[in-house]
Amino acid sequence: MNILIIHAHPEPNSFNGALTRTAVSYFTDNGHTVQVSDLYAMQFNPVSDRKNFTTVDNLSYFKQQLEELHATEHNGFSKDIRTEIEKLEWCDLLILQFPLWWFGLPAILKGWADRVLVMGRVYGRGKWYDAGAFKGKKAMLSLTTGGSSETYGQGDLHGDINNILYPINHGILRFTGFDVLPPFIAYSPAHVDDSTRENYLLEYQKRLKEIDTVEPIRYPSLAEYDSQTFQRKE
Amino acid sequence: MNILIIHAHPEPNSFNGALTRTAVSYFTDNGHTVQVSDLYAMQFNPVSDRKNFTTVDNLSYFKQQLEELHATEHNGFSKDIRTEIEKLEWCDLLILQFPLWWFGLPAILKGWADRVLVMGRVYGRGKWYDAGAFKGKKAMLSLTTGGSSETYGQGDLHGDINNILYPINHGILRFTGFDVLPPFIAYSPAHVDDSTRENYLLEYQKRLKEIDTVEPIRYPSLAEYDSQTFQRKE
Repeated sequence: MNILIIHAHPEPNSFNGALTRTAVSYFTDNGHTVQVSDLYAMQFNPVSDRKNFTTVDNLSYFKQQLEELHATEHNGFSKDIRTEIEKLEWCDLLILQFPLWWFGLPAILKGWADRVLVMGRVYGRGKWYDAGAFKGKKAMLSLTTGGSSETYGQGDLHGDINNILYPINHGILRFTGFDVLPPFIAYSPAHVDDSTRENYLLEYQKRLKEIDTVEPIRYPSLAEYDSQTFQRKE
Repeated sequence: MNILIIHAHPEPNSFNGALTRTAVSYFTDNGHTVQVSDLYAMQFNPVSDRKNFTTVDNLSYFKQQLEELHATEHNGFSKDIRTEIEKLEWCDLLILQFPLWWFGLPAILKGWADRVLVMGRVYGRGKWYDAGAFKGKKAMLSLTTGGSSETYGQGDLHGDINNILYPINHGILRFTGFDVLPPFIAYSPAHVDDSTRENYLLEYQKRLKEIDTVEPIRYPSLAEYDSQTFQRKE
């Protein structure tokens, strides 16, 4: 298997770092190939603008999606974007490794999605959801939180973690065609003891071992919607 | 009233630009004071790291929240962060104006939240949700989408827009104490005709006119949770 880990944490010795090292060791020890995009180490620029492109479609009005369509046809993506797209096309499994910041992706990782998942080469013209470009590939979020698991259930203080992750799981990963595996969540690693942290790493390894058999999250299929209006069929 | 608009779009002549200009005109014409943080124009850096600080708490391990607590006590925030915090403290109404990218905030705006909403001065030690630092202030999302409104209801192709916005409304705005007003959403401005776009601007002005009377979104109160474990009281 080819595995791509997009890693987003400013501190190499963070628990996110330990989780990524755990995954890299596990996969390479078992004969798989791993690439890590360590966004902070790469000094990845998350701001979408004309720097995404070496080509120009419309110089007087910047509409990103139209520039992306144009760049798709004229090989006009900047090198950093092209490289990330090639890694995505190469991988069988994508893992996004990040700390949950403000109940979402850290900006450096959100901007990776904003810039790399381009209209044309990656989505559009019928390529989305279960007809997405990355159909047949798996993806999984691996994250850490500040709060404890007891604050992330339905009706809990911070709200249901599944709802919080829905825009990422469904709106980014499923949208581009991935089968989305349930997230791996290490709750509050900064506030638990060493043995709990050790246990998180063991649990993570166990999860990675089961990656072939774990059921993806169920989402509606395009077949349930009208192909013109995208409204749900009665 | 003091109004702060955080504006996040790379194209000044975009429909997001028109919405922000509509708001600025409306409020100034009616005797209010408006500040706009135009993040692209400011070249705001959304990447959280040591550049957030002029002080250092721990040089060998970067833990952002601890650095924020330290910087709160030692006036150690970088100028761009300090300026934004002061605008937040100044305002009575906060508007986030953005295009919905990948079902969330554009990275430049997500990073504004990541960097500016600091532990210590803005939240923590009991300051959150209805006891948040910005208690008594109002906040509202104003956004544009790619898809039509028919694709953003419950059970629809993209999922319920209220669920998609929940991590922002509850996790960022409510978390820091704002009363969160229902979002203003201009669906698919790139794919509707001029008169529909004109109408969006009129509707937006109407919404701004009613800002004092519109009911905030109802969220649970801290009083419903145990103050030690944060678990819901039976």
